[in-house]
Amino acid sequence: MSKFDIRFMRKIKKIAVMTSGGDAPGMNAAIRSVVRTCAYYRTDCMGIYRGYQGLIEGDLIPLTARSVNNIIHKGGTILKSARSKDFRTKEGRQKAYESLKKNNVDALVVIGGDGSFTGGVIFNKEFNFPIIGIPGTIDNDISGTSHTLGYDTALNTAVEAIDKIRDTASSHNRLFFVEVMGRDAGFIALNAGVGAGAEEILIPEEDLGLERMLESLKKSRRSGKSSSIVVVSEGDKTGKNVFELADYVEENLPEYEVRVSVLGHMQRGGSPSCFDRVLASRLGVSAVELLLDGKTNLMVGLKDNKVISTDLEKAIKGQHNIDTELLRVSDIMTT
Amino acid sequence: MSKFDIRFMRKIKKIAVMTSGGDAPGMNAAIRSVVRTCAYYRTDCMGIYRGYQGLIEGDLIPLTARSVNNIIHKGGTILKSARSKDFRTKEGRQKAYESLKKNNVDALVVIGGDGSFTGGVIFNKEFNFPIIGIPGTIDNDISGTSHTLGYDTALNTAVEAIDKIRDTASSHNRLFFVEVMGRDAGFIALNAGVGAGAEEILIPEEDLGLERMLESLKKSRRSGKSSSIVVVSEGDKTGKNVFELADYVEENLPEYEVRVSVLGHMQRGGSPSCFDRVLASRLGVSAVELLLDGKTNLMVGLKDNKVISTDLEKAIKGQHNIDTELLRVSDIMTT
Amino acid sequence: MSKFDIRFMRKIKKIAVMTSGGDAPGMNAAIRSVVRTCAYYRTDCMGIYRGYQGLIEGDLIPLTARSVNNIIHKGGTILKSARSKDFRTKEGRQKAYESLKKNNVDALVVIGGDGSFTGGVIFNKEFNFPIIGIPGTIDNDISGTSHTLGYDTALNTAVEAIDKIRDTASSHNRLFFVEVMGRDAGFIALNAGVGAGAEEILIPEEDLGLERMLESLKKSRRSGKSSSIVVVSEGDKTGKNVFELADYVEENLPEYEVRVSVLGHMQRGGSPSCFDRVLASRLGVSAVELLLDGKTNLMVGLKDNKVISTDLEKAIKGQHNIDTELLRVSDIMTT
Amino acid sequence: MSKFDIRFMRKIKKIAVMTSGGDAPGMNAAIRSVVRTCAYYRTDCMGIYRGYQGLIEGDLIPLTARSVNNIIHKGGTILKSARSKDFRTKEGRQKAYESLKKNNVDALVVIGGDGSFTGGVIFNKEFNFPIIGIPGTIDNDISGTSHTLGYDTALNTAVEAIDKIRDTASSHNRLFFVEVMGRDAGFIALNAGVGAGAEEILIPEEDLGLERMLESLKKSRRSGKSSSIVVVSEGDKTGKNVFELADYVEENLPEYEVRVSVLGHMQRGGSPSCFDRVLASRLGVSAVELLLDGKTNLMVGLKDNKVISTDLEKAIKGQHNIDTELLRVSDIMTT
Repeated sequence: MSKFDIRFMRKIKKIAVMTSGGDAPGMNAAIRSVVRTCAYYRTDCMGIYRGYQGLIEGDLIPLTARSVNNIIHKGGTILKSARSKDFRTKEGRQKAYESLKKNNVDALVVIGGDGSFTGGVIFNKEFNFPIIGIPGTIDNDISGTSHTLGYDTALNTAVEAIDKIRDTASSHNRLFFVEVMGRDAGFIALNAGVGAGAEEILIPEEDLGLERMLESLKKSRRSGKSSSIVVVSEGDKTGKNVFELADYVEENLPEYEVRVSVLGHMQRGGSPSCFDRVLASRLGVSAVELLLDGKTNLMVGLKDNKVISTDLEKAIKGQHNIDTELLRVSDIMTT
Repeated sequence: MSKFDIRFMRKIKKIAVMTSGGDAPGMNAAIRSVVRTCAYYRTDCMGIYRGYQGLIEGDLIPLTARSVNNIIHKGGTILKSARSKDFRTKEGRQKAYESLKKNNVDALVVIGGDGSFTGGVIFNKEFNFPIIGIPGTIDNDISGTSHTLGYDTALNTAVEAIDKIRDTASSHNRLFFVEVMGRDAGFIALNAGVGAGAEEILIPEEDLGLERMLESLKKSRRSGKSSSIVVVSEGDKTGKNVFELADYVEENLPEYEVRVSVLGHMQRGGSPSCFDRVLASRLGVSAVELLLDGKTNLMVGLKDNKVISTDLEKAIKGQHNIDTELLRVSDIMTT
Repeated sequence: MSKFDIRFMRKIKKIAVMTSGGDAPGMNAAIRSVVRTCAYYRTDCMGIYRGYQGLIEGDLIPLTARSVNNIIHKGGTILKSARSKDFRTKEGRQKAYESLKKNNVDALVVIGGDGSFTGGVIFNKEFNFPIIGIPGTIDNDISGTSHTLGYDTALNTAVEAIDKIRDTASSHNRLFFVEVMGRDAGFIALNAGVGAGAEEILIPEEDLGLERMLESLKKSRRSGKSSSIVVVSEGDKTGKNVFELADYVEENLPEYEVRVSVLGHMQRGGSPSCFDRVLASRLGVSAVELLLDGKTNLMVGLKDNKVISTDLEKAIKGQHNIDTELLRVSDIMTT
Repeated sequence: MSKFDIRFMRKIKKIAVMTSGGDAPGMNAAIRSVVRTCAYYRTDCMGIYRGYQGLIEGDLIPLTARSVNNIIHKGGTILKSARSKDFRTKEGRQKAYESLKKNNVDALVVIGGDGSFTGGVIFNKEFNFPIIGIPGTIDNDISGTSHTLGYDTALNTAVEAIDKIRDTASSHNRLFFVEVMGRDAGFIALNAGVGAGAEEILIPEEDLGLERMLESLKKSRRSGKSSSIVVVSEGDKTGKNVFELADYVEENLPEYEVRVSVLGHMQRGGSPSCFDRVLASRLGVSAVELLLDGKTNLMVGLKDNKVISTDLEKAIKGQHNIDTELLRVSDIMTT
C-alpha cells in the first residue's frame, strides 16, 4: 500500500500546531519539523497564533514546507505565544473547539510546558480531540523527558554571561550573586553553576542554609580565591531574594565587595544550540507520526537519547527531580 | 571511619592525569575535575604533559586545586596533547612505567580517544597499573558513552559556521558543500547537518549514492529553494573528496553555482559548551572515585544522563553506531 | 514650510535600493535604513532583487517601514545580490533604465563595492540618473571611507575562528597557516592577524619574502613559543597559495608540524557587529537625504567618525592603502 | 646609531604598567602591547597589581614578552584593578613614588579612565614622574580619543543581549526596558540602541521627556508593532530609574505588558572585539615610544583612525560629546 493510499485512509487529514506559555529557543525548529513532517506525509498543516488564546480568536494560517524555510536557527516563535485566561473557562474551550472544526483541523500539536499540557488534557477530555505535546521550556521542569526544548540553549546563554561576569569579578576581587531563571526548578542554576565553576549554587530544591554559605565563602577567601560567583535560582529556598542575599553577605563578610547581576529574559532568547535544533526536529517528526497513527494524549520526549512518548497526564503530574549526583559534583568542584 | 582514616588505608595515594590524542573542548574542565576530586579526597595529583610521550620523557608536574583555577571555560588542554610512537614499543612503555614509579604515582587517568585507550589497556596488562579512561574527542566515536567530551561543543561550532555560510549562500542563490570533521564517524555531519537545516548530508556510514544526491538537489531547486547546503563528513563513502564532489555537481547541475567550505580545525577549539563542562566535571569525579575504590581498566561515560563505567577493552572494540532514526528525520526535514 | 509641502516640491518621489556584488554583513541594516528614511521623508521606496541583473529583469517590489522590521541583525541580504554580465552591455543598461522608468523610480541607492559603483557611474553618465553608493564589502578596499559595511564584522568572525584554532595549535605545538579573505587588499589579514596575535602576517601589499618568514619562525621557536599562527591573505605576494606555503615551511623547518585552515565564506555571513549596524543606519540616512537634496554620483562614507560623501568616480579610482603604522605594530607585537 | 646604542643613552630604562579603575575588555591586550614594545626596545618592564593601591603596597612583578603570551583575547585584566583611597592622600602618593624608585622604575603607563588620569596628573606634578595614559573604559567618556578600550566590545555585548531579549519580546508582544551601562555618558545606550533597532533610547545627555516617550510608544503600537525595546542608560535624565520607568509606562499604557532587564556587569567582561585588540596593540606601542622619546603627561588615543596624543589634563577636562547626528538617525530609524 503506497503512502498515498494510506493518506486517504487516514482520519487525520489536517494538523494544527501552536506554541504556548513562556517561549523557548528551539520552538521555531519544532514548528518547522511539524510542518515538514506533515508535508512529507501529505497531511495539511495550520499554524495557530498566540497559543490557546489565538485559537479561541480564530487566528490560524495554513503552513507549507516553504513557510518554514530559514527559521530553524531563530530564537522566539514565529507563531508567538501567550497565556490564555479564556481557555480556562468551558466557554473559551468551546470556542477553541469550534475554531478547530471550522478550519477542518483533526489534531493538535502543542509546544509548551506544564500549564499548556494541563489545558490540553482537559480539552481532550471534553471534546475527545487528538492532541500531542512537545515539551518546550527553558526550565527543564517536565517529567517524561530528559531535556525540554530550550534548556540546553539557556544553559549556554547563562554560562557565557557568567564567564563575562567572572572576568570583571576576578579583576576586582569581587563576589557576584548571579540570578538565573528557574522559579520552581534548579536545573538551570545547578548546571550553569557547575558549568561556570561557581563557588556556591542556591536552588529551590535544597535549603543549604545561609550559615553554611557564609562558612563556605569564608573558607574560599582563606584558601586564596580572590573572587567568587554564587549562582542563585529565582526561586531559591533561603527566603531572601538575590539582592537581600547580597546585603546579608556584605554585612556578615565585610571583606567581600559584593555585586548582583540578574540575567533575566535574555536566557529565553537567542539562536538555539545544535542540541535543541536536533531535539526539536526529532520531537516534531514523532508528534506528527503518533497523531497519524491514531495516538493521542501523549507527550513526546527524550530518554537515553531515544525519542519516547509518555502519557500526557503522567508528564504533568510527574516530578522531574534534580540529580543529586550533580549536587555532590558541585560540592567537590568547589573544594 | 573518617575521610582521613580512609585515606591512610588507601593504596592509591597519588594519581596522575594526562590528555592524549586529538584535543577536544572540555579537556581542561576534565583535568580540573580530576585535580579537584583528588584534593577533596586528600590524594596527591600530578599532571603529565603531552600524553604518553611526555610520560616517557618524565614531563610531570604536581597539580593542586589552585593550579586549575579559571580553566573550566578554556578550549585546548593546559597539559598539551601528543601522539606517541615510543609508547607503541615495549621499551617506551617500560620507560613510562619507570617515570610513574619515580614520581610515586599509583594510578592514571587518561583523557582521550580510542587510540589512547588501546595504549592504556596494553600498559595495564604489562604492568598491572591502575588506569581509568575519560572519553575526550569531538568525533563521538566511542562505544560505552552517549557523548564524548568536546562533541557537543564541536556541533555548536559547526552549526554556527554553517549558519553564517547560509547567509551568503542564500544571498547569492548558491550551493555550498561544507566539510565537517569525522573521518570514520558521521556523528558531527549528521547532527550538525540536521541542526543547520542542510539539504543533504553525506556520512561515512552510508553511501547514499551520487545519483540520489543529484536527484535530490534537482528536486530542491524545482521546489523553489534558491540555495542549498550539503554537509559532508571528511570520510564520506562516495569515494570523492569535497572538492571533487563540488566539481561533479557543477558539471551535472549547471544551474547551480557551487562553492566549497572546509571548516577544519576550528571545530577542535573554542570554549566548551555548558554540557561539555558539566560532563567533564562529572566524569572526572567518577574516574578518581573508581580508582580510589580499587577499580581499574574502566572507561567512565554517560548513559541516559547517568554516569556509568564500561570495561575499557569493550569500549575500544565496541561500535558506537549512528542512530538511524536521525537519518530518517533528516530525510523528512528536507522534504 | 512643512515636511509635506517640501515633499510635493521634490523631484525625487521614489527611490529604489539594491545590493550588488559580494554580500556583506550590515547590508540588511543599510536596506532598512534607506527604507525607513524614505518613510520618514514620505518618499516611496522600492527594493530591487539581485542587483543590476534583477533590475534588468524588472524584479522590483515596494518596501515600507514595516517590510524591514526585524532585519537589522541579519546577515546576508533580503534583496539578494548578484553580478550582472548584461549590465556591462549598453543594451542591458537600456533595459535597466526602462525598468526604473516603468516603476516611476527617480533615484537609485546601490549598496556594494567597486564593481557595482563603476556600473553606476556609467549608468549615470548614459541616462543622467541620480545614484548614490553605499560601500558594502568585507574587504574594506574602497577609497573615501575609513570603513566599509561588513568589514568590522568579518574581522570579528576571523579573529574568533583563529582564537579557536590557537586552542588546538597550542595543545599540539603546531604551526597553522590560516587563510582569510582579501584578494587585493590585506586589511582583513593585517587587522585580524594583529587582533589574533598572529606570529606572521602575509598580505598582498607587501612581499615580506619567504626567507624572512622562515627566519622569523625559527626565531619564534627558539624563543620558546611552541605554537604559531601565520595569517595569510588570499592574494598574498609570495606567489604560493596557502597550501604551497605550508609545504614549503614543512620542508624547510621540519621541527614544525604544519596545518592549514582556509576560513572561507563564513567570513561573509553572520549577524553584523554593533559598529556595522550603526554605520549602515547612518549611511542609509545620508544616502537618501543627499538624493532628496538633488545630489548624485556620490558615495557616502565615514571619515573621523563623521558621515561624509565623496565623488563616486574618485572613490572607485582612489586607493585605500594599508596603514603602515599597523605593519610596524604587528612587527613589534611578535618580538 | 643602532637600537642598542640608543638604548644605553636613554633615560627611561624601566617602565611599569598598571590597570586602574573599572576594568574593560582590551586591557590585557594593552598590557601585552606595553610589555612587548618594551621588549622590542630592550627596555625593562614591570607590572603593578591593583592599580595605584598595589603600587603603594609595593605589589609589582617583572614582565617579559613571554609573560604576556596568550592573553590578547582575554577579558578582564591579569594585573587586576582597584580604586585607591590612599592615592588621594599626599602620604599615599609619597609611598607610591618610593615604591617606583625602589624598583628602579623610570616611567609609568596607566591604563584606565578619567579618575585614574587625574591621579596621574597630580602624581606627575608632585614628583615630576613621567606618565602616559591609555584610555580604557567601556563608557567612551574620555575626550581626546574617538574610542576608549573596551567600548566596542561592550557595544557588541549589549547588542547581542538585546537581540536575545527581542526574540522573547516579539514572541509575547511585550515592551522591554533594557538598562545598559553609562552613568554619565550615553554612548553605549545610543549606539547599542541604534544597533539593536530600539524603539526608544533614553540617555543622560538629553531629557526627551516622559510624555514624548508615551506618545512615541502609543504611535509605535498603532503602527502595528507588537513588541518594543526601550534602551535606557544607567544615568538617564528622566529622574526615574528603569523600574520606575517601567511602572510609569505600565500605568499609562495598559495595553503594554512591560518587562525590565538590567544588563549589568557582563558588559565589562568577555573576549575583546578585533577592534579593541588592535586599538590596544597600537596604543601600547605609542605609549612606550612616547616615554622613550622623553615625553610625559600625555594620553594616547585615536582620531580618524590614526594614533594621536593629547595633553593628559586636556583629556580629563575635555568633553566627549554625543554625536547629535546619531540622535537624529535614531529618530528616523524608529519612524
